[in-house]
Amino acid sequence: MHTGLCEQFGIEYPIFAFTPSEHVAAAVSRAGGLGVLGCVRFNEAEELERTLTWLDDNTDGKPYGVDVVMPMKIPTEGTSVDLGAMVPEAHKAFVDDTLRKLGVPPLPEGEGRAGVLGWLHSIARSHVEISLSHRPVLIANALGSPPVDVIEQAHAAGVKVAALAGAAKHAMSHVANGVDIIVAQGYEAGGHTGEIASMVLTPEIVDAVGPDVPVLGAGGIGRGRQIAASLALGAQGVWMGSVWLGTEEYRNLSSNAAWETAFTRATSADTVRTRVYTGKPARLLKTKWTEAWAEEGAPQPLPMPLQNLLVADAHSRMNAHGDPDVISMPVGQIVGTMNEVRPVADVVADLVAEFEETVARLDKLRG
Amino acid sequence: MHTGLCEQFGIEYPIFAFTPSEHVAAAVSRAGGLGVLGCVRFNEAEELERTLTWLDDNTDGKPYGVDVVMPMKIPTEGTSVDLGAMVPEAHKAFVDDTLRKLGVPPLPEGEGRAGVLGWLHSIARSHVEISLSHRPVLIANALGSPPVDVIEQAHAAGVKVAALAGAAKHAMSHVANGVDIIVAQGYEAGGHTGEIASMVLTPEIVDAVGPDVPVLGAGGIGRGRQIAASLALGAQGVWMGSVWLGTEEYRNLSSNAAWETAFTRATSADTVRTRVYTGKPARLLKTKWTEAWAEEGAPQPLPMPLQNLLVADAHSRMNAHGDPDVISMPVGQIVGTMNEVRPVADVVADLVAEFEETVARLDKLRG
Repeated sequence: MHTGLCEQFGIEYPIFAFTPSEHVAAAVSRAGGLGVLGCVRFNEAEELERTLTWLDDNTDGKPYGVDVVMPMKIPTEGTSVDLGAMVPEAHKAFVDDTLRKLGVPPLPEGEGRAGVLGWLHSIARSHVEISLSHRPVLIANALGSPPVDVIEQAHAAGVKVAALAGAAKHAMSHVANGVDIIVAQGYEAGGHTGEIASMVLTPEIVDAVGPDVPVLGAGGIGRGRQIAASLALGAQGVWMGSVWLGTEEYRNLSSNAAWETAFTRATSADTVRTRVYTGKPARLLKTKWTEAWAEEGAPQPLPMPLQNLLVADAHSRMNAHGDPDVISMPVGQIVGTMNEVRPVADVVADLVAEFEETVARLDKLRG
Repeated sequence: MHTGLCEQFGIEYPIFAFTPSEHVAAAVSRAGGLGVLGCVRFNEAEELERTLTWLDDNTDGKPYGVDVVMPMKIPTEGTSVDLGAMVPEAHKAFVDDTLRKLGVPPLPEGEGRAGVLGWLHSIARSHVEISLSHRPVLIANALGSPPVDVIEQAHAAGVKVAALAGAAKHAMSHVANGVDIIVAQGYEAGGHTGEIASMVLTPEIVDAVGPDVPVLGAGGIGRGRQIAASLALGAQGVWMGSVWLGTEEYRNLSSNAAWETAFTRATSADTVRTRVYTGKPARLLKTKWTEAWAEEGAPQPLPMPLQNLLVADAHSRMNAHGDPDVISMPVGQIVGTMNEVRPVADVVADLVAEFEETVARLDKLRG
C-alpha cells in the first residue's frame, strides 16, 4: 500500500485518520498511518496547545496532521452570547421539548457548554496559529479551501494543505487557491458530505485535478477491500473517520457505553444526511433525535454556525444520559461493519492485510 | 477480468449490460459481455417474441439474458383502463399543466401510449414465458425475488435467476427464495435504487450471501477503474446500465438528439432520486420535468403501477418534443463521464483496457 504520499509524508501507509481524539491520532501515526487531529472541539487555545504538546510527545517522532473548520464564506462573527441572541426562541423550545419527550435530563449545574466555537472563522484561524507552533505535516480544512493567506502561512512553514471536496468543480477551485491535496468526500461519508457517491466522485476528481495533485478517497472506507477500491479509482490514499469511533483509544475522549451499543448494532441503513448537526448537510447515526427533526412540524435547522450553538448543550445532555436510541453522532454508512471495539493498531493491521489480499486476488483476474 | 461467472455463462468478461435495446444487448454479447434485454417496455407478446427471435439471430450464438419487472408484492391487476380510473384527476391536471408550462405539445393524433404494462405482474409473467421459449441464460428481476414458482420454472429450463438488492437483508431473502445471483444496486445507480452507496453495499452483500452466491456490483460503474473497484469490493462481475444509453446502437431504439445533448453536458450532480418515474425511488436525469415535481404544491407521486400510467404519455410527448431541458430518463451518477456517443464494441474494449491498467497499477502498490 505504498504510494507517493508515503514518501511525501514519511509514513508507511497512505491511511489518513481524521479523529477528534489525540489518543486515536497518536496511535494511527505510531501504526504507520497519519493521524489528523480534529480541532473544532477546542474552544480554549490553552487546551489545544496542551493537546498538541501531548501529541508531539506521544507519536514516537512520527508525523501527524490537524484538521480545522474554516468556511470559505466567513460566517457572522461575535461572542457566543451575541450569536446566541440570533437563535429563535421557537427553535430553543423545540429542542427543550424534544429532549423532554425523549427522557433526557438536564446536565448537573454548571456542566453545560457554550457551543462549539471552532465553527467560527476567528477561532479556526487561532487553531492554525497554534498548530503551526507545533510540528504538523498537514493542515486539512473540513469545509473546502482555507483563505489564501492561511494556505501561504502553512506553506511558509513547510506544511501541506488538504481540503475536502464533494464535487470536481470544488476540487479544481481548491487547487487554484493553492491547496496541495484533495479529500474526495463521497455521499456515504460521515459528517459534512455532498450527494455524489465515492465510486463516481473519486475518479471524477482525480481526472479533474490531474496527476500532480494527490487525491484521498473518503466515504465508505472501513475495510481493506474499500481501500483497494479507492486506490483502484485513482486515489493515492484514503481519509477515514468513522472507523476510529469504534476503537479503544477513542474511549479516552468519550467513554460512552450508549454509543458503543448504538454503533455495534447499527446497519448501513441506520444513518441519515441532515442539516441538524451544524446547519450544513452532514451524515449522522439515525436516532430518535434525528427522527424528531424529520417529523412534520419540526423547525428547519438554522444556518451554520447557529445550529450548532442551538444543539451543543443538547448533544452534551444526550451523551451524558446514555440512551443508545438518543444520540447525536456523525458517522458514515460503514457503521454497518463496525461491530466491536478494537485497538487502533489492530484496525490498521487488518486494513493492510485485507488490502494486500484484495490486490493479490485482483491480480489473478488479469488477462 | 476473468471470474467464475465467465465460466458459468460462457462469456469472456463478467460485464452484464442491462438495456432496453436489443441492438445494444446483441452488441455487448458479441463483444464478450452478457447483454440483458429489459422487457418492461413490451406491452405486446408478439413484439417481445419478434425481438427475442432477432436476438437469437444476431448474437453469433453468444449467450444473452432478459430482465423483467416482477414486484414481490403483486400490485393491483386490471386492464390499463381499470387502472387508469384510479389515477386522480388532480394528478392528471398537474401533468397537463406542467407540460403546457414547459412548452411540450401533444403527440400527433393516435400516437399516445397506454402506459407501460410490464410493471403488471401478469405481463411480467408472460415475459418470462416467452423468454423461456428462446435461449436466455439469465432472467433478472429488477424488483427483487421473482415468485418461487417462476424461479423453479427458470431453473427447470436451465436458466439462472438474478435479482436486484439494495440492502444485505434483501439479498439474503432473495437467496433463501432460490435466486442464483445478486445484483448489488448502489445509491448512485440509475433507475430503482436504495440509499446505500456501492462502496458500502457491495462488500456488505458479498459477506452476507457468502462465497457460493456470485454478486454483481451495480451503481457508479462506467469505467474500467470502477469495474476494478467493484471486483476489489468482492463482486464477481458488474451490472451496467447507464453507459449503454450513450452508444450508437442505442439510437436504433430511440434516436433522440435531445437526450444526446442532455447526457453529454450533464455532470454527476445532475441526477435526482425521485418517485416520479414509477412510484418507487429511482434515479433520473435532473431536468425541468423532475424539478416541476419537486416544487412546493406539486402532488406526491402515485404508488406503482399508477404513477407510470399517469406519466407514460408525458414521457412520449417529451421525447418527441426534443428539448434537452425537458426529458424523463433514468440514468446514474456516471452520466457525468458520458460525454460522447460511441459504438458498444469500443466501450467494452475501453472498459477491459482500463481494468487491466488499473489492476497492474494496484499490483505495484503491494507490500
